Amino acid sequence: QTSVSVAGVIDTYVGSLKYSGDSGRTSVVNSSGMTTSWIGFKGSEDLGNGLNANFKLTSFFRSDTGASGRFNEGETLFSRDANVGLSGSFGAVSLGRDLAPNFLPSTLFNPFGGSFKLSPLMLHMDVPRFNASGWTNSVAGDTGWSNEIIYTTPNFAGLKANLHYQFGEVAGNTGKNNVGANLLYFHGPLGLTAYYQRVQVNNPLEVSPNNVQPTTNIPLPSGMMAARQSAWFVGGSYDLTIAKLFATYDQTSHDIDLKDQTVQLGASIPVGAGAILASWANTKREGAAIGASLKRNTASLGYDYNVSKRTDLYAVYMYDKITDQTVGNSMALGIRHRF
Amino acid sequence: QTSVSVAGVIDTYVGSLKYSGDSGRTSVVNSSGMTTSWIGFKGSEDLGNGLNANFKLTSFFRSDTGASGRFNEGETLFSRDANVGLSGSFGAVSLGRDLAPNFLPSTLFNPFGGSFKLSPLMLHMDVPRFNASGWTNSVAGDTGWSNEIIYTTPNFAGLKANLHYQFGEVAGNTGKNNVGANLLYFHGPLGLTAYYQRVQVNNPLEVSPNNVQPTTNIPLPSGMMAARQSAWFVGGSYDLTIAKLFATYDQTSHDIDLKDQTVQLGASIPVGAGAILASWANTKREGAAIGASLKRNTASLGYDYNVSKRTDLYAVYMYDKITDQTVGNSMALGIRHRF
Amino acid sequence: QTSVSVAGVIDTYVGSLKYSGDSGRTSVVNSSGMTTSWIGFKGSEDLGNGLNANFKLTSFFRSDTGASGRFNEGETLFSRDANVGLSGSFGAVSLGRDLAPNFLPSTLFNPFGGSFKLSPLMLHMDVPRFNASGWTNSVAGDTGWSNEIIYTTPNFAGLKANLHYQFGEVAGNTGKNNVGANLLYFHGPLGLTAYYQRVQVNNPLEVSPNNVQPTTNIPLPSGMMAARQSAWFVGGSYDLTIAKLFATYDQTSHDIDLKDQTVQLGASIPVGAGAILASWANTKREGAAIGASLKRNTASLGYDYNVSKRTDLYAVYMYDKITDQTVGNSMALGIRHRF
Repeated sequence: QTSVSVAGVIDTYVGSLKYSGDSGRTSVVNSSGMTTSWIGFKGSEDLGNGLNANFKLTSFFRSDTGASGRFNEGETLFSRDANVGLSGSFGAVSLGRDLAPNFLPSTLFNPFGGSFKLSPLMLHMDVPRFNASGWTNSVAGDTGWSNEIIYTTPNFAGLKANLHYQFGEVAGNTGKNNVGANLLYFHGPLGLTAYYQRVQVNNPLEVSPNNVQPTTNIPLPSGMMAARQSAWFVGGSYDLTIAKLFATYDQTSHDIDLKDQTVQLGASIPVGAGAILASWANTKREGAAIGASLKRNTASLGYDYNVSKRTDLYAVYMYDKITDQTVGNSMALGIRHRF
Repeated sequence: QTSVSVAGVIDTYVGSLKYSGDSGRTSVVNSSGMTTSWIGFKGSEDLGNGLNANFKLTSFFRSDTGASGRFNEGETLFSRDANVGLSGSFGAVSLGRDLAPNFLPSTLFNPFGGSFKLSPLMLHMDVPRFNASGWTNSVAGDTGWSNEIIYTTPNFAGLKANLHYQFGEVAGNTGKNNVGANLLYFHGPLGLTAYYQRVQVNNPLEVSPNNVQPTTNIPLPSGMMAARQSAWFVGGSYDLTIAKLFATYDQTSHDIDLKDQTVQLGASIPVGAGAILASWANTKREGAAIGASLKRNTASLGYDYNVSKRTDLYAVYMYDKITDQTVGNSMALGIRHRF
Repeated sequence: QTSVSVAGVIDTYVGSLKYSGDSGRTSVVNSSGMTTSWIGFKGSEDLGNGLNANFKLTSFFRSDTGASGRFNEGETLFSRDANVGLSGSFGAVSLGRDLAPNFLPSTLFNPFGGSFKLSPLMLHMDVPRFNASGWTNSVAGDTGWSNEIIYTTPNFAGLKANLHYQFGEVAGNTGKNNVGANLLYFHGPLGLTAYYQRVQVNNPLEVSPNNVQPTTNIPLPSGMMAARQSAWFVGGSYDLTIAKLFATYDQTSHDIDLKDQTVQLGASIPVGAGAILASWANTKREGAAIGASLKRNTASLGYDYNVSKRTDLYAVYMYDKITDQTVGNSMALGIRHRF
């Protein structure tokens, strides 16, 4: 049978790492410098009349140790995708574990894409830091949702929308769930995007039934716990040929007094068989829940060299600073192979 | 090399669920409405003279979250199959994790097949309920056995038998093990089956070395613990073309005073590109181990529509009632895709 | 896409087992009699000019229960290989989880190869025994290392070397790491090998940051803990056509008073479509850390019959004796299938 294919990305780097808040520097062989390493199975069946049945079963893994998932606790075997659905002229419907509304707008509109290690935007939005800084990801509910229904519209002259609904699956309480939507528009050199999401269920690991945001795992110093987060995001890109420029802005608010605003600017400049990548993100965090307001500034500069269409080598330097914390600066030299 | 193939089933449904004993109703995207979702690897090598070497490595998973296995505790990575063996004119021998004697007779002789969510027979025999009802599966030892040897006879004019032996692997005690056998006969419109098994080792998770049955995880109210269960089962099916009819009867007894009897009747009625499915099961549970005797009545009615040979859509309503417990009724609307 | 292939080995045996120190005999269906069962994904991309990008993602598993890994605690999903790298005229570089320096010299220079169940050499070097003997593996740091860089030289007239470095990844402490190298020489009937390694990081599970060796999990009776082990090994093989002969010697020492010396002699004698395999290993363990010195003598004798190039059947008897412990003797009858 040719009804299933195996695909994935393995991305590993040698690095010297110090994030803002770290007391020491660490030398590592680590996973997922530019793309979170994954492997999995996909298939599509032609049902006639333009209708298709589709499925994806894909797993994140760590290419330095072989561990399953992105982190140790709370990840499922198929942590990236576990979905099945139908697509056709009406658009597409997917059931199961799939993308959250925030994923495509944020990864497609910064030059470091879906790098949760080196992209300033992704680090601010999605990655908690278990060091002295106690940095919590600004956007709640993970970048993938379980128990989800997604409806994707057909493509209208470059414009596409995704509607997301995640069941909370609490007996006798249908009010606890996640909802969101995003828009993606691509026309010639121009790209535009927006998303909105309201999160009440944390993913993939919910520490307590009430605790949603912004902490996945790190408690707020005030002891306050959020049960709901609203987030919205806008972004644009323009390809000038000599450089592709990116800009994004997002804001989150909660049922407690806590608010984040993030600006990101970036550029990708083709040079030789690769591109120079540069991105800067600034987040302002404020509200009674954290006491004195914080700022975080992160900037990355790198060169990504394409050895082939499927394999690239990258070298990246990253600066990172959070109010009152040690300065971080990190270097990474890696290889990414698609299969 | 073409010595290994990837295959599986992904089955996901949207449902509104209330089993007997549940206090509230739950809205869900869940896995495995009609078939337990699985994926895995298989291969067969022709050794000449009609002899083949065969292996299977397959995993259950939950298509709503991507989690491995059927449930959270005690499942291995290849929870469905991990076996290798030889087949030829003598029949077949398999070593490792494979089917238990009870699986084929019960799933082939009810119209909802191997559905552990919607088939009344499978729910009574194999699925504990962690709600107020404290329902324990009537048949002990799981539907798959580890550390097992199976011998399968050749097919004699439609008749085939499987002999199963599971090592308990207790040092210095070869007496603790599971044994069983089943018969399957198919000839024209008629099908007949029977199985017997004696279980002393629980699968896949043995809570205590003495506790076998019927509780996998739920203690009997009396505090009594069974160390041995005997189960026997007979079933038949007849295809009238306008409908295929099913009937089964099984009985379990223990080394303590506890006994279950289950009757199941069912029909599958071809309509359009699919079939109407109906099945009813009644279990009577009695003995000093549980105090007052119990009855459970469960009935399911559904329509299963084949979009293609590999993909079907289903809609099922299920009624469920256990003595002294709340009435359950559930609806499920799902998609099953084979690859 | 033909960029990834699936491969593996499934090896299962029926056995009656008693190791030295066991009080009773156990009847089993067990995994990995001759080769540790594994399955995984591999790929290689031609980048031109003799350069290739290569990756491997492979998992050990237990073919008797379907469990992931070689043992229950501390194993990752891709416990065998999780690496990516480049190869060309310069040799090869690999990043991630891959072989330790000790693996190839020990498995290629004993007649039972990589059998961690029946090869006397591998049992002495690599397998702790959780019975009355408290036997701890003489060689620390596992047979695979995570967070590793390997450089492999080109083949110089039959001679090849591998240089291994494993990052300890301790913040602010680059001194804690593993290093090693091995040599492999094959020319006509002659094979020669050597390795040296210095281990400070245990694999895959480090019980405590200070405890390295020789105990993976079993504490030394004296309560002393080693933080560093040095091991060296030499071996040779010669193929006389009527028999292939093997001899190895290895020695380990520690930062505490503890020393192991192991001698192994073996032969593989072609008979019919298979070979008679015989191997004997003797380890002398001494030092203040264990009190009175110990000896372990283990000998295995078997016949390995090739049903085809990919499938073999084996029968092995093993004798095992540790000073002051019960005598062990075990029998195994198994099937190994490569795919």
